[in-house]
Parts: sequence; C-alpha cells; structure tokens
Amino acid sequence: MAHEIKILTETELRALVKLDLEAIDVVERAFRALGSGDVVMPPILSMAIPEANGEVDVKTAYIRGFDGFAIKVSPGFFNNPALGLPSLNGLMILFSAKTGLVEALLLDNGYLTDIRTAAAGAVAARHLAPREVTTAGVIGTGVQARLQIEAAHLVRPFSRVLVWGRDAQKAQRCADDIGRKLGIEAFAVADAEEVVAQSQLVVTTTPAEEPVLKAGWLHPGLHITAMGSDQTGKNEIDPAALAAADLYVCDRLSQVEVLGELRAAISSGVWQKGTPPELGDILSGKHRARTSDDEITICDLTGTGAQDTAIATFAIEMARQKRSGTAIIT
Amino acid sequence: MAHEIKILTETELRALVKLDLEAIDVVERAFRALGSGDVVMPPILSMAIPEANGEVDVKTAYIRGFDGFAIKVSPGFFNNPALGLPSLNGLMILFSAKTGLVEALLLDNGYLTDIRTAAAGAVAARHLAPREVTTAGVIGTGVQARLQIEAAHLVRPFSRVLVWGRDAQKAQRCADDIGRKLGIEAFAVADAEEVVAQSQLVVTTTPAEEPVLKAGWLHPGLHITAMGSDQTGKNEIDPAALAAADLYVCDRLSQVEVLGELRAAISSGVWQKGTPPELGDILSGKHRARTSDDEITICDLTGTGAQDTAIATFAIEMARQKRSGTAIIT
Repeated sequence: MAHEIKILTETELRALVKLDLEAIDVVERAFRALGSGDVVMPPILSMAIPEANGEVDVKTAYIRGFDGFAIKVSPGFFNNPALGLPSLNGLMILFSAKTGLVEALLLDNGYLTDIRTAAAGAVAARHLAPREVTTAGVIGTGVQARLQIEAAHLVRPFSRVLVWGRDAQKAQRCADDIGRKLGIEAFAVADAEEVVAQSQLVVTTTPAEEPVLKAGWLHPGLHITAMGSDQTGKNEIDPAALAAADLYVCDRLSQVEVLGELRAAISSGVWQKGTPPELGDILSGKHRARTSDDEITICDLTGTGAQDTAIATFAIEMARQKRSGTAIIT
Repeated sequence: MAHEIKILTETELRALVKLDLEAIDVVERAFRALGSGDVVMPPILSMAIPEANGEVDVKTAYIRGFDGFAIKVSPGFFNNPALGLPSLNGLMILFSAKTGLVEALLLDNGYLTDIRTAAAGAVAARHLAPREVTTAGVIGTGVQARLQIEAAHLVRPFSRVLVWGRDAQKAQRCADDIGRKLGIEAFAVADAEEVVAQSQLVVTTTPAEEPVLKAGWLHPGLHITAMGSDQTGKNEIDPAALAAADLYVCDRLSQVEVLGELRAAISSGVWQKGTPPELGDILSGKHRARTSDDEITICDLTGTGAQDTAIATFAIEMARQKRSGTAIIT
C-alpha cells in the first residue's frame, strides 16, 4: 500500500536542528529513558570492509513514549580524505513505532550524529561538572573538539578554553575557531597536561589507542568527558584515572565494556569497583551525582541508539512544523 | 560534501526487477560468493517492539567484487492488517563499497526481498531437485507460496502444482492464482501429506511453530525447500526428516542453527550428522549435490544479507540503464 515518506537533506537538517539547549534537552530525555529502562536497544551491528579501510555501524533503539524509532547507518571509510571525501557519512531512517512504516529519510551525512554526540557531552557536563567552570579544556582538534566545547558552554558558561592536539597548527586553528564562535579567550597550549591542570572541565575527542590523559594529572574539582572511544582498541584515558576518580559514569555499560574507556581499565585489572552507573542512572536519581565541587568525575561516552532516535524524532517534528523536506510516495 | 543519491520507489523497482532467470542468476552469484568465502556478513541486528507486536531486522553483507553493499531494514508489525496495512515492509540502502557514500535508496516495501527469497528457492531447486519434476507442491498460501512456485517453474518446468494451507479457501485462491499465472494445472488439496506424496519438489512457506511436514511422508526422489523459518521458535519440518534425508543443505550455518529448521533438530537431539553444507558449498563444488534422482534432499533457507546486496546492486544497475528514479543532492 502506497504511503508518503519525507526526505530531508543535510542542508535542510542543518536549518532545522541546531546545537542549542533544546537539542541538549532532547538528548537528555533519551538518557532519562535509558535510565528508567524504557528503552529497547540491541547491540550495534558492525561490518568491516578491509579492502577500502572501511567499516559500517548500524545503531537503533526504541524509546517507549516516542512515536518513532530511528535506525542509523554510519559508514567510516578512512581512505576517503585522499579522494577528497569526508571519512564519516551516513543517514538515519525514522520508522513509525506503531506500524513499522518508513516515515522519513534523514540524509544528514553524519550531521545529526555530530549534534547528538556533542549534546550528550553537554548532558554529562550539566550533571557532573563542578558548578563553577571558568576554564574548559579539549584534547583533540576535530569537529567534535569544536562542538563539544560549544555544547558544554551552553551549560557551563566558562570564559576561557585551552586546546591541545598532536598537530600544533590544527590546535591553533581549533582554538581560533572556538574563540571566534563563542566570543571568549581560547588558546592552543604545548602539552595536554597543561590543559588538564588549568581546567575544571576537560573533553577528550581523539581516536587515540594509547591514553592521552594520565592519572597523575587529575586534580580536585575536575570533570572529564571522554567521547573519542567507540571501538575496541581505542583508549583515551589512563585506566588508573578511571579507578582514581570519585565517580566514573558511562553512557551504556554493555557498550563501554567493549568499546569505551572501561574496556582497557578492566583488561588491565585496574578497575576493581564493580558495575559503574550509567548517565541515565544519574539523571533518574538512581545513583548519586557529584556530591562536592572538589570531586573528580569522569563520563565515558560511546554513543547510543537512544540518542539517534531522540534527535531523529526531534528533526522530523521540526520539519513538520516548518513544512521542510520533499515527499515521495512509495 | 554534497553528492547525489538515487531514490527508487516500489513502482519503479517492480518495473526494473522481475522474478526471472536473470534475477535467479544474480542470487546464485551471491551464494557462490558465500561458498567461496568472499563475503563479510555480520549477524542480523534484531529489535522487538512488543507494544506494537512488531520487530525490525537489519541485514547486510559485503561481497568482494561487487561495487556496492546493501543494508536492508525489514520491519514486521503484525497488528498492521487490522489497520488495513501490510505486516511486512522496509527498504534497502545501497552504499559504495569504496567510499561508504549512500548511492541509492530502494523504497521497495519488501518487494526486492520477495524476489531474492523466491530466487533463492529456485537456486536450491536448480541444484538439488531431481532432474525431472512433473508435480510441485507448496505448503502455505501467502505471497511466497505463489512466488516460490513461479521461481521453481523457471528451473524445473513442472506441469502440475498442489497447494495445501490451513485455510481451504486461501489454498484454493492460491492454486487458482498459480494456475492462471503459469498456465498449468494447480489444485488445492485436503491435506499436506497428499502434497508431499505426489510431488518431486515441495516448498514450505509457513510461519509454523510446529512441523507441517512429517518425516514419515518422505519418499525417494523428493526435494524440499523450507523457507518459512526466519526466527527462533519457528519450525516447519519434522526434525526427524532432516536426519533422514540423504542431504540437508542450509543457506548459512550460523543462521539456521538459531533461526532455521536445524535449530529444532539440534535441540531435540535428532541431528547427529555434524556440520551440514551450505548452498554455496554445493554451488562451488566443495560439497556433493544430489547424486541420484532417488535421493531425498532438503534445503533450509533463512535469507541472507548477501542476497540483499546482490539484488540491490542488480536493481541499481537496471535503474542506471533505464534512467529510472529520482536524484536528490545531499
């Protein structure tokens, strides 16, 4: 039976969904649902295409109370830059949770993933960072380095940003971009330790396979969000730092054990604190958050299908309101 | 970076891809690739949405030598008929195997799955059925009952078809449709045993959870293709029949152990023949096929991502040749 499918391009989606407090609230609702158990979220489907140095991940989640569920397909093809193409790509498909009919194709080329990933960092910062953050730091110099700082600034309006990356020129460009965008001071610094020493909030955004943040650098009144690890083999944070922190929180236990920072901490034997809380447990009050401004907290984000369903549902609501997109009958 | 995506509707796809020998050959190539190990095929992603009596499956496979790979999303929402909607639905997305960019969206509402599923039955019949088939039988009365017989007729031009289903009226309509379509005799019969007794080729196409085909009905010179089971809990063929057959072949071992006929045969302890061959092993000559017209063969099909990639690639080739579809820039 023929039905209508709405198609939204990246350009249309960029006009509809911005990195703002509304998007952060949308993603926070997804984590609340995860915390209350109102989510069906199967393991990530992952396929490698070694000949092209490529991989493709498929994520999905059904959140009770949402009209639709999204399936996100994220290809990463790491020879693409040599061809003049971005490595990351993809689309989201929104289905009716009542009939399973395709409702919308969100041809976002990864834009909505960028937004929901940065928004998750802001949710972590909102509920775990010290109340007062004057300096924020970022390790890494890519798209997420910029977006994570932009999102965190919405919930902790710091006045200074420090950036470190392996490539000093890229770090300088990243600092310049952040400073211009937020209208605050932003500096590239010579080593990662200095970033951590001077910041109350640090985000790591690298694909590192060896820790870029050492346990010895931790200091009272620090929150760290590690969002770079999303695959076995990646590791941004010294396992000893996870053990030393007053509170370690993950987005989804079943994912961080395999894909996140917890993996290395478990396999090295350093992690002895049992089952850590998920971000949703903090939001729902099932587990304590930070209890004093002096504590050290770490949040480990690998990215969840629940965030995808939340942001895709929000995007299509906005598209309906603004009558955006193209309809196809099939 | 903006790129072009081709969108094809169900109507366009029905005009481009038919159930013919060309489609059967396309699917046979997918099984040959599976048999030669030239396929990366991750486990199926599956999510239940119990509130809506729904489920959604995602399948994919990369076949070496193919320019693209498909990801297929198949929702099944079993309250839909009460809403006047079909239970099964879905779409396929074709990606470049070189860059991971989305090349095409095939909004087929399950049509290409119907074709590649029936084509797989024909591949099994071509390589496993007795050379001479005068009567073919089908158990089940749905879309696949019709298409499996239509496809099998392309490789074994039988002159008579027998149909059995739980609902006698539906069986009669199915027989009438088949007779008209193929221009041969087709009868609905009163019990499944009669179908098997009189046929050299039988296809089971039901969602049965208790066997609809008994081991005692097997006779020399019989080939059975069981294509209904695609989920844990389904079981069309008496486990003792699998053990009694001269040759049992599956589409993919890792799938039939969990989703196919072999599951019940293993769990009941009846299956004692070790690792069975896959259809691809028969095609590549790694394992013997039928060795005499008197043997009893069974083929267990659960549906593979490799078939999806093959039929999607074929569909987009046809669309390019015929300049069909709509282009969207994103």
